[in-house]
Amino acid sequence: MKSKLFTLLLLFSPLLAHADEDVAHASSPDGRITVTLDLNGEGRVGYKVSRDGKPVIGDSRMGFLLRNGEELLRNFKLESQTARSVDETWDQPWGERLHTRNHYNELVATFVETGRGKRKFDVVFRVFDDGLGFRYSFPKQPNLGRMEIVDEVTEFDIVRTATALWEPAGEWNRYEYLYNKTPLNQLSQAHTPMTMKTDDGLYLSIHEAALVDYASMWLRRVDGQRLKARLAPGGTQPASVIRETPFATPWRTIEIADRAGGLVESSLILNLNDPNVLGDVSWFKPSKYVGVWWSMHLDQQSWATGPKHAATTDNTRRYIDFAAANGFRGVLVEGWNPGWDGDWFANGWNFDFTKATPDFDIEALSKYAAAKGVHLIGHHENGCAVSHYMSQLDAALDLDQRLGIDQVKTGHVCDAGQIERQDVANGPVTREWHDGQWMSNVHLQVVKEAAKRHIAINPHEPIKDTGLRRTYPNWISREGARGMEYNAWGSPPNPPEHEINLVFTRMLAGPMDYTPGVLSLTGRGGQEIQSTIARQLALYVTIYSPIQMAADLPEHYAQHMDAFQFIRDVPTDWQDTRMVNGEIGEYVTIARKARGSDDWYLGSMSDRNARTLKVPLSFLDAGKKYRAEIYRDGAGADWHGAARFKFAKETRTVTAKDVLDLWLAGGGGAAIRFVALK
Amino acid sequence: MKSKLFTLLLLFSPLLAHADEDVAHASSPDGRITVTLDLNGEGRVGYKVSRDGKPVIGDSRMGFLLRNGEELLRNFKLESQTARSVDETWDQPWGERLHTRNHYNELVATFVETGRGKRKFDVVFRVFDDGLGFRYSFPKQPNLGRMEIVDEVTEFDIVRTATALWEPAGEWNRYEYLYNKTPLNQLSQAHTPMTMKTDDGLYLSIHEAALVDYASMWLRRVDGQRLKARLAPGGTQPASVIRETPFATPWRTIEIADRAGGLVESSLILNLNDPNVLGDVSWFKPSKYVGVWWSMHLDQQSWATGPKHAATTDNTRRYIDFAAANGFRGVLVEGWNPGWDGDWFANGWNFDFTKATPDFDIEALSKYAAAKGVHLIGHHENGCAVSHYMSQLDAALDLDQRLGIDQVKTGHVCDAGQIERQDVANGPVTREWHDGQWMSNVHLQVVKEAAKRHIAINPHEPIKDTGLRRTYPNWISREGARGMEYNAWGSPPNPPEHEINLVFTRMLAGPMDYTPGVLSLTGRGGQEIQSTIARQLALYVTIYSPIQMAADLPEHYAQHMDAFQFIRDVPTDWQDTRMVNGEIGEYVTIARKARGSDDWYLGSMSDRNARTLKVPLSFLDAGKKYRAEIYRDGAGADWHGAARFKFAKETRTVTAKDVLDLWLAGGGGAAIRFVALK
Repeated sequence: MKSKLFTLLLLFSPLLAHADEDVAHASSPDGRITVTLDLNGEGRVGYKVSRDGKPVIGDSRMGFLLRNGEELLRNFKLESQTARSVDETWDQPWGERLHTRNHYNELVATFVETGRGKRKFDVVFRVFDDGLGFRYSFPKQPNLGRMEIVDEVTEFDIVRTATALWEPAGEWNRYEYLYNKTPLNQLSQAHTPMTMKTDDGLYLSIHEAALVDYASMWLRRVDGQRLKARLAPGGTQPASVIRETPFATPWRTIEIADRAGGLVESSLILNLNDPNVLGDVSWFKPSKYVGVWWSMHLDQQSWATGPKHAATTDNTRRYIDFAAANGFRGVLVEGWNPGWDGDWFANGWNFDFTKATPDFDIEALSKYAAAKGVHLIGHHENGCAVSHYMSQLDAALDLDQRLGIDQVKTGHVCDAGQIERQDVANGPVTREWHDGQWMSNVHLQVVKEAAKRHIAINPHEPIKDTGLRRTYPNWISREGARGMEYNAWGSPPNPPEHEINLVFTRMLAGPMDYTPGVLSLTGRGGQEIQSTIARQLALYVTIYSPIQMAADLPEHYAQHMDAFQFIRDVPTDWQDTRMVNGEIGEYVTIARKARGSDDWYLGSMSDRNARTLKVPLSFLDAGKKYRAEIYRDGAGADWHGAARFKFAKETRTVTAKDVLDLWLAGGGGAAIRFVALK
Repeated sequence: MKSKLFTLLLLFSPLLAHADEDVAHASSPDGRITVTLDLNGEGRVGYKVSRDGKPVIGDSRMGFLLRNGEELLRNFKLESQTARSVDETWDQPWGERLHTRNHYNELVATFVETGRGKRKFDVVFRVFDDGLGFRYSFPKQPNLGRMEIVDEVTEFDIVRTATALWEPAGEWNRYEYLYNKTPLNQLSQAHTPMTMKTDDGLYLSIHEAALVDYASMWLRRVDGQRLKARLAPGGTQPASVIRETPFATPWRTIEIADRAGGLVESSLILNLNDPNVLGDVSWFKPSKYVGVWWSMHLDQQSWATGPKHAATTDNTRRYIDFAAANGFRGVLVEGWNPGWDGDWFANGWNFDFTKATPDFDIEALSKYAAAKGVHLIGHHENGCAVSHYMSQLDAALDLDQRLGIDQVKTGHVCDAGQIERQDVANGPVTREWHDGQWMSNVHLQVVKEAAKRHIAINPHEPIKDTGLRRTYPNWISREGARGMEYNAWGSPPNPPEHEINLVFTRMLAGPMDYTPGVLSLTGRGGQEIQSTIARQLALYVTIYSPIQMAADLPEHYAQHMDAFQFIRDVPTDWQDTRMVNGEIGEYVTIARKARGSDDWYLGSMSDRNARTLKVPLSFLDAGKKYRAEIYRDGAGADWHGAARFKFAKETRTVTAKDVLDLWLAGGGGAAIRFVALK
C-alpha cells in the first residue's frame, strides 16, 4: 500500500515511478538458499529469501526511523556491491562441540540516498547452508554522524503459513514466560529466538547475533505473517539506540532447516560473532555445582539473616563437603552478603558486594573449600540497583579473585523496565530495560572486568544470549527464561512441554543455567514438580550449559542415590552434539559426546503425552562397544502424583548399529550414559 | 502468573498472601452493566465489567511504568471511595443530534501504596447504559510530582470470543489503512476506535475521550484476547507522557451494545468531554464546500506554480461561481501559497502561510466570494514542519480572519513519527509522532488560536478525534482515516466495505471530512472508483461531518445533474440520528433529521455483496406524510465497470408506517430525502 507521501511523490516525479528491481544476490554454499536484495518503486531497500527455489521470506523492507534526522527509508539506489566466500573451522574452548565449521557466502551492498544528504549504509548478508544473517553497517560520512534510532523497521515477511513457538516480549516478567504455540498470525510481540514450522515442513528461527551497544530486537507482528523488528525502549535516553557512525548493528539471523534438529545443531549464531579476544581461557573449568539456594526457594531457609539464614559458615561447610564427596567443583551461596534483610527488592541500593554477613566467614570457607578442590561461587544479586552495583564492581571482583571465587552469578530481580540507573552520585534515578542499549553495555562491562581477573560470569534476569561467548568465553551461561525455580513456587510450575519448548527456542541462543536435578520432585508447600526422576536426569544433556547445578538439597539426593549417579557422572563439556529425534514442543532426544573421552550421553524428554521413541544409536562411534547405563521412567510413570517417582535403571551393551525403544512417560524422560568399552 | 518479584515478596511477607478482593462497585443507571474494582494478592488494582450478569471484561490490571520513579503497579490498598449520579441533557451547537442526554453513575476510588512513598491515585469510572469510561487522576502529593510515563499498563481482557474490526497502529501510514476483520486473537496492535462483536452477539468498541496533553492510546494484544494500552512514543522527550501532578489522564472508553446501531448512536465520547468553553459559536456554519483539489489528485493540475497551477485567480473564480450557483458556502483552495514548488514534502520549511502566490489574488477573490455569499476555505499544509508552521500561525490566522476565511484545513503529510519539531530557532530538529503528547498540545493550540479569531479548524493527517469538539466547537472535523483521495491514486482504491467499516470504527470517534460525491467514479489514469452513483450520495448521510465537500470537478457534476440534486439538497447539521439497520463491515442504513426542518435524510451502503434491505420508515414523525426522493442503484448496478453508473431516481409518498425494500448493488447504496408535506 503506497503512502500518501509516496503517491504525491509520484505526482511530482515520474522518474520514480518504476517497479521493484532486484539489485543483488547471494546464495548459500550449497546453493539451496538464495537471498535477493531489491529496491521498490519508492527506492526502499528490501530483501527476500528462497530455498530450493520456493519463497521463504517475502519482500521485506529495511530501514530506520531517527529522532534527530530524516527517516532512512526511501529514495535509495545501489552504489556498489562486493562478494566473498569464507570456509574455516575454529575450535570452541568449551561448548556443545569442539570443531565448528564457519562456511558462508557474503554479500556487501552499499545503498546511497538519491537526494537530501546522500546518506549511505551497507547491508551485509552472510548466507550459510543452515540459514543467514544480515546486518546494517554505517560508514563515517558527512551527513550521518550521531544516530538516535527510534526504531529499526526491518521486516520478516514469512511467506508460508506457519505455526510459531514464542514468548511475549515487552511484558513485565522479562523472559520468564511459558511459550505460546499458535498460528503465526496470532503472534503479537515476541522475544527471540522465535521458532516456526511451516505447514509444508520447513523449520525457521529468527534471532540476533552479537548484540553489542544496541537495544535488543523484539519481533512485532504487523499484519498477516509479516513481522517487524521492535527495539527495546531507550529508558533514560530518548531513543532506543544512540550511536555515532561508523558502526554496525547486530546480525539479524534466520536459521532454516528441513528438520527440527537442524535448528538445534546449527552454529550460525556463534559463527556470526567475533572470535575470542581473551586468549587462553583454560582457567574456566566447565563443571557442576551445588548451592545454598533451593532451600530458600522452598521457604525452608532465608536469604535474610536471622534464625533461618541459609548462608552461614556451618551450613556452607556442609555443602562444600557434599560437593567434594561427589566431584562437584562449585558451591553457590546466596544470602552471603549484607542487604537481604527487609525489603531488598525495593532496596537493591542496600546490597554490599564487598563483605560478608557476620555469620558467614568467607575467608575460612574459601580456604576450607580450596583444600577439598572446591570453589565458592559468587553471587551478585543487585535487585536492579545496577548503578549501585557497578560502583562496587571492582571491589567485589577483587574480593572474589583473592578468595578463588572464579565464577559469579549475577542477578537483576525486578520487573522489565525497572532497572535503576544513576549516572551521578546522589543524582536523579532513571529507569532502564533489562535488554536495552544501556544494559547491553553494562553486561559486557561486567564480563570484561571479570575476565581481567579470570572470573566467569553467569547472569540471571539477563539480556538474551546472542553468542558473545565466542568473543568473551568467560560469559559462560545465563538464565533468560523460566527456570527450575518456578517449580518451587511458580503458579503454575513449569508444565511438561516447557523444557522441550526451551530446546527449540531459548537454547538456540546459547547455554542456560536451568539448574536441573531436583530429584525430590517437590516444590514449596508440597507442590508437585510436573516431571519424573528420569526427566530430571535428561535435563543435564538436553539443556546445555557448561556449568550445571545439582540443584536439590543434599538430603534429597541421599534418598535417590541410584538416580544421582548419573548426575555425578555426566560431564558439562562436549566434543559433539546431535539431535537424534524431536518435534517442536512435543519431544526431543539429544546425544552428546564428552570431550576428552570416548563416552557419549543421551537425554530424551516428552511432553504431556507418553510415547515410545525409536532411538537409533548411529551417533556412537562405529566399531565400538558401549555399556549403556540407562536411567528411565519406570512402568506407569507419569508427571502426576506418586507415579513421578517410578524409575528404573538398567545396563546393556550396545553398538552404533542398535536401535533402542525408549518409552517415556508423559512429562518424563530418559538419560543414558554410554561408556566406551575397551 | 506471578512474577519472581511477587513470589519473593510472598517468601518474605506472609501478610501479602491474600487472594483477589473486590473493593468497589458501580453500575449503569439501568443496572445492566456492572463494574467491579479489585485488588489482587500483590495489591495490584484491577477492574472487571459484566453485563446482565455475564462477564464482558475479565480481571484487567491497571498501573503505570515511570522513567523517573518506581512503577505504580503493586502494593496498593483502597483508601476511600465516593459515588454520585448525574442525569442532564445538553444541546450540541451542531452535530448528529441536538439534545444529548448525559446519564451515568460515577465511582471515584482512591488507592494508596502501602509502602514506599505512599503514592496515591484515583480511578474514576462513569458507567452509562451504553458503556463506560474510566480515567486515572493524580492528586498533588509529596512523593509524586513530575511523572515521566513510559507506559500505561491498562488492560482490557475481553472475555467472550470475539471478531475484531481494526486498523494497525504505529505503522508509517498513520491512520490511513484498510481495516482488518479478524478473530480478536489475531489483532497485533491497533488504533482506536477498535470495534468487536462477540460470538454471542454483543457489540463492543474501545476508544478514548478528551485526549489532552497526553499521548494517544494504541491497543496492543498481549496474549489470547487480552489487550493492553500502548502509548504513542515520546519522540523528542524520553517518555510517552510527561506531566506534573495534579492531573488526570484521558478517559478510556468501552461502548457496549446489543445491536451495532447502539455503538453508532451513542454519545458516550462527547458526554465524557468537558462542556463548551467557547460560548457562542454560531459564527461556525455547518455547510458544504467545493474545492480546487480533486484535479490535482487526478494529476490534471498541480499544487505547484507553473502552467498546471490549479490555484490561480481565474480558476478559483470558476469554483466560486459554481459554489454560489449551488448554494455551497465554501471553496477550498490548495496550492494557493508559496512552498509547493519542488520537493515540498521534504521541505515543509519552505511553506509560507502569510501570503499567496503571485497568480493567486487572494484579496480580490475573497471580496468576489463575499459578494456571492461564498467564503474561501484556508489551507495550511505544513508538510510536517510543524514548528515552522507554528511560528507563522498568528500571522496566518490573522490573514484568514481579515479575508473572511473562517474555516481552515490543516495538513501534516509525512510518515508516522516524522513530524519535525524545533524548539529553538536554528536549533536541533527532532521528530514527533502525529498522535504523541506534543502534537496533542499543538493541535489544541491551533484550535484555540483559531477560536479567538472565529475560525474553525479541520486537520488532515491529524490526531484521532476524542470528542474535544464538545469543549471546542470550532474543532469541526478532521481526516484520520483513508479518505476519498485514495480513490484517485490509491493502490488499491477504497474497497466497497471500507466506508462501512468506517461507520463502525472511525466514525464512532467523531466527524470525518471524507470528501464524498465523486460522481464521475473515476480516479487518476481512469482508475475505477469501486462505488456507484447512489453510493456516492449515501455518503453524505452515512459519514457524518458538519462540513461536507462536493469533491468532484464542476464539469463532472454537470454530467450528473439528476444525482447532483441530492448533494445540493442534503444538509450537514442534524436534529437526530438513528441507525436503522446494519452489521459491522457488511451494510448500514442511517437516517437523520435535519435541524430547523421537518425533513429526514437516509443513506444506505452495502459491501461487495448486492442485497435487498427492508427499511422500516418508523423513524419518520408519526402522522406526517413525506415525499421520498429516492436516489438508488439502477438494475444491474455494481461496483465494477460501466455498471457503476446505473442509477435511478424516483419519488414516492410515504409515512412512518411504510417499509421500503431497498435493493443495493455490491459496492452500492441509496440516498433518500424525505420532504415533509403540509
